[in-house]
Amino acid sequence: MSELSAATGLTVPTIKYYLREGLVSAGARTAVNQADYDQGHVHRLRLIRALVEVGDLPIATVGAVLAALDDASRSTHDVLGVVHHALAFGGARAHPLRDADEAVAEIEQFIAGLGWQVAREAPSLRELARILATLRRLGWDVTAEVFRRYADAADALASWELEQTDSDGHRSEVVEGAVVGTVLFEGALVALRRLAEEHHSASRFASKDQRRPSQPAG
Amino acid sequence: MSELSAATGLTVPTIKYYLREGLVSAGARTAVNQADYDQGHVHRLRLIRALVEVGDLPIATVGAVLAALDDASRSTHDVLGVVHHALAFGGARAHPLRDADEAVAEIEQFIAGLGWQVAREAPSLRELARILATLRRLGWDVTAEVFRRYADAADALASWELEQTDSDGHRSEVVEGAVVGTVLFEGALVALRRLAEEHHSASRFASKDQRRPSQPAG
Repeated sequence: MSELSAATGLTVPTIKYYLREGLVSAGARTAVNQADYDQGHVHRLRLIRALVEVGDLPIATVGAVLAALDDASRSTHDVLGVVHHALAFGGARAHPLRDADEAVAEIEQFIAGLGWQVAREAPSLRELARILATLRRLGWDVTAEVFRRYADAADALASWELEQTDSDGHRSEVVEGAVVGTVLFEGALVALRRLAEEHHSASRFASKDQRRPSQPAG
Repeated sequence: MSELSAATGLTVPTIKYYLREGLVSAGARTAVNQADYDQGHVHRLRLIRALVEVGDLPIATVGAVLAALDDASRSTHDVLGVVHHALAFGGARAHPLRDADEAVAEIEQFIAGLGWQVAREAPSLRELARILATLRRLGWDVTAEVFRRYADAADALASWELEQTDSDGHRSEVVEGAVVGTVLFEGALVALRRLAEEHHSASRFASKDQRRPSQPAG
């Protein structure tokens, strides 16, 4: 158990909790107080850690994602659907959609115009509608077209990502790769956009603001 | 107060809470139990709602962002720095960085190679390092170059966004526009990537999986 902790960076109590929750299978018992864990256990625990620490998913949701991953009757596309629903937006979770009915129809039309085929109940459609309605309440005179450039960038990235996926590989590896890519590269894209904004904002606003850095240069 | 609720979509108790927390200034008192609110109050409440419901920021953090916005001595670039720190990653908040020291140096080098000038303590740098270390623990044999395509997309988007900002306008409008753009378009980009992934995953995996839709078509 302590070797498992060293190999995964998780504390022993955390590992025991994941075992109790059934997120990882029990090791082969070798004595009353001892069990053997193999590389499969190590890998599964690392995957759980990635979903919790980078994806910020609650444990129950991690359980749902892993169950979908383990269910060989589910297609890769199916499992990604579970992941997309699991990654629901924090604000959206806490605050049900209001005042955005009109915007939903506009967003559906915009997405259809991009040629994208997505499920009508995709949480991201409602999130986009919420954002469009919010922009308008704040006085922005915009249509769904305001998202065009972001949609084109997302289209190019998603198309490239899926090309990288070796869809002829072993199912479990393909599916896990798709899950990891979805969760981790989403975090990477967000982080990179913030850094790019910091850089470009410095070059645009710093001259007006006497080139004062936003943070003390470490 | 009930008109304010209708105009903002917030409940009366929520508005009273924001007043108590000092996020919005009190109205001009017209009677013991009555106060006048103007368009400034409506707008401020809508902005708070946007930061809470779309940005998923806790109230204390919204307060910090609004204080930076209201402080005329702060540059736009400064205020965006506050926003970027406020938008810290959920997983990163709960789980301090571990096992990623080596990755931090690699990420710093990668970002410098892009020509981006960012503060060394930017939370996004540590988040990228965490993601790189996580990918490796999961067996991906990758360097920071794996983020290149995402960085290029983020660079193009951020450059374009900042060009749209009317930096000659009234300070409060410019700064608010930058804050709203940062928070709301981040949500939009994430939502659009998920939809693009759903679309491309369908065309890549659905044929192998007998073209079964991931969700019943609504």
